[in-house]
Amino acid sequence: MIKITIIGSGNVAQHLIKAFTKSEGTEIVQVFSRKKGSLTHLIDSDKIATDFSDLKEADLYIISVSDNAISEVSEQLSFKNQLVVHTSGTTSIDVLNSKNRKGVFYPLQTFSKDKAVDFSLIPICLEAENQEDYNILDTVAGSISKAVFSISSNQRKAIHISAVFVNNFTNHLYQIGQEICEEHQVPFEILKPLIQETADKIKVLTPADAQTGPAKRHDSLTTEAHLNYLTDENQKNIYKLLTQSIQNNGKTF
Amino acid sequence: MIKITIIGSGNVAQHLIKAFTKSEGTEIVQVFSRKKGSLTHLIDSDKIATDFSDLKEADLYIISVSDNAISEVSEQLSFKNQLVVHTSGTTSIDVLNSKNRKGVFYPLQTFSKDKAVDFSLIPICLEAENQEDYNILDTVAGSISKAVFSISSNQRKAIHISAVFVNNFTNHLYQIGQEICEEHQVPFEILKPLIQETADKIKVLTPADAQTGPAKRHDSLTTEAHLNYLTDENQKNIYKLLTQSIQNNGKTF
Repeated sequence: MIKITIIGSGNVAQHLIKAFTKSEGTEIVQVFSRKKGSLTHLIDSDKIATDFSDLKEADLYIISVSDNAISEVSEQLSFKNQLVVHTSGTTSIDVLNSKNRKGVFYPLQTFSKDKAVDFSLIPICLEAENQEDYNILDTVAGSISKAVFSISSNQRKAIHISAVFVNNFTNHLYQIGQEICEEHQVPFEILKPLIQETADKIKVLTPADAQTGPAKRHDSLTTEAHLNYLTDENQKNIYKLLTQSIQNNGKTF
Repeated sequence: MIKITIIGSGNVAQHLIKAFTKSEGTEIVQVFSRKKGSLTHLIDSDKIATDFSDLKEADLYIISVSDNAISEVSEQLSFKNQLVVHTSGTTSIDVLNSKNRKGVFYPLQTFSKDKAVDFSLIPICLEAENQEDYNILDTVAGSISKAVFSISSNQRKAIHISAVFVNNFTNHLYQIGQEICEEHQVPFEILKPLIQETADKIKVLTPADAQTGPAKRHDSLTTEAHLNYLTDENQKNIYKLLTQSIQNNGKTF
């Protein structure tokens, strides 16, 4: 049984607590939260530490706090030579304090408090300083997910930036779509099956093969009509830039 | 039994033929295609007309051809006072020739030849010149879909532009995500669950509530690091514009 301590009480920490509570082969020995009450709905009160000096021995310490707090939290740990990882997509393994063995345990997903996720489908990107530590992380990740990958800090940056494009920016395009609908008294519901199908297509086609629409067809009559119809300059600018980019196949023109 | 004739042999026409073949309450009496062979895998050869003068009487003629051919095809029909509709998202009802009763039957979905769709979930946007014709379209649409909407030509434009944002542009962001991954030897597979979850979230949250990421957090350390990491000017420009737009909540700044 691998003993795990989770440090943090945010979205990712809470989803990890839920996942490890259900998994076999791992045991949450303790969680750390400045405010005890923020985690009592997930775990026994006596397993919640509010002071770093109360942390017990574990095989793995997972720091799941905001990116800019990782370094400080790792410094405040009072023990040495333990395996300590963070869960950040953007942060290098090197921000962790060197008094402990370092690693990364990055679940690549968008976590919302209000929406349950199936952890078994979430890719987990692992990094460690040596094979022995990697093997521990691999076992732990494998206990909650079927999709475990060895990913360097530099590769993780690429993944995180790609994730910004396919998640953050895509979601923002949904928002613009909704705003255009509302401006013209059209229920946004009408677009939801299309949003779903757009994502589903990527399971069987490459994005380049799945591309359709007036930009792809170089149908300038339609793209001009769309630009004339749009009333917001920001929407027009996004329309122009993405149309150009599709026509140049995503490369600088 | 409502008798339908479908004019055209492209993606949308073929998906409509499949859907009506399975539906109750409607019957495809004929389809029109310049090339007989392009539809023989879907319908009996003797139901395929290759000359407009061979078209028989039907309750509804659905013109499903490229946008710029709709007007000409509607003009070439030799009969009068029949109900004739097109399936285009971008084209006004007015491009149809006035010798027949006009309407629009627009299924809002991205159709690929290589991927089957569940037509019952596809929203169909209807427009007609009078209530009697609308009722015919409503019955026909209701025979293949559970999501039927009355939508004016002007509203349809808004829907089509929104669809460009949530489908065409979103798919292009997937492509950019894939390119960034490939540049850094990361399998694009890693991002697919995130793409799926991004679309799934919209079922339960508004896009504004679902928005996460460094732009939303005004985390300029991360957005600057991402811009430095990107090597392609086009990718940088898209990153900058969409980051700004998220920070201004989709409005002109």
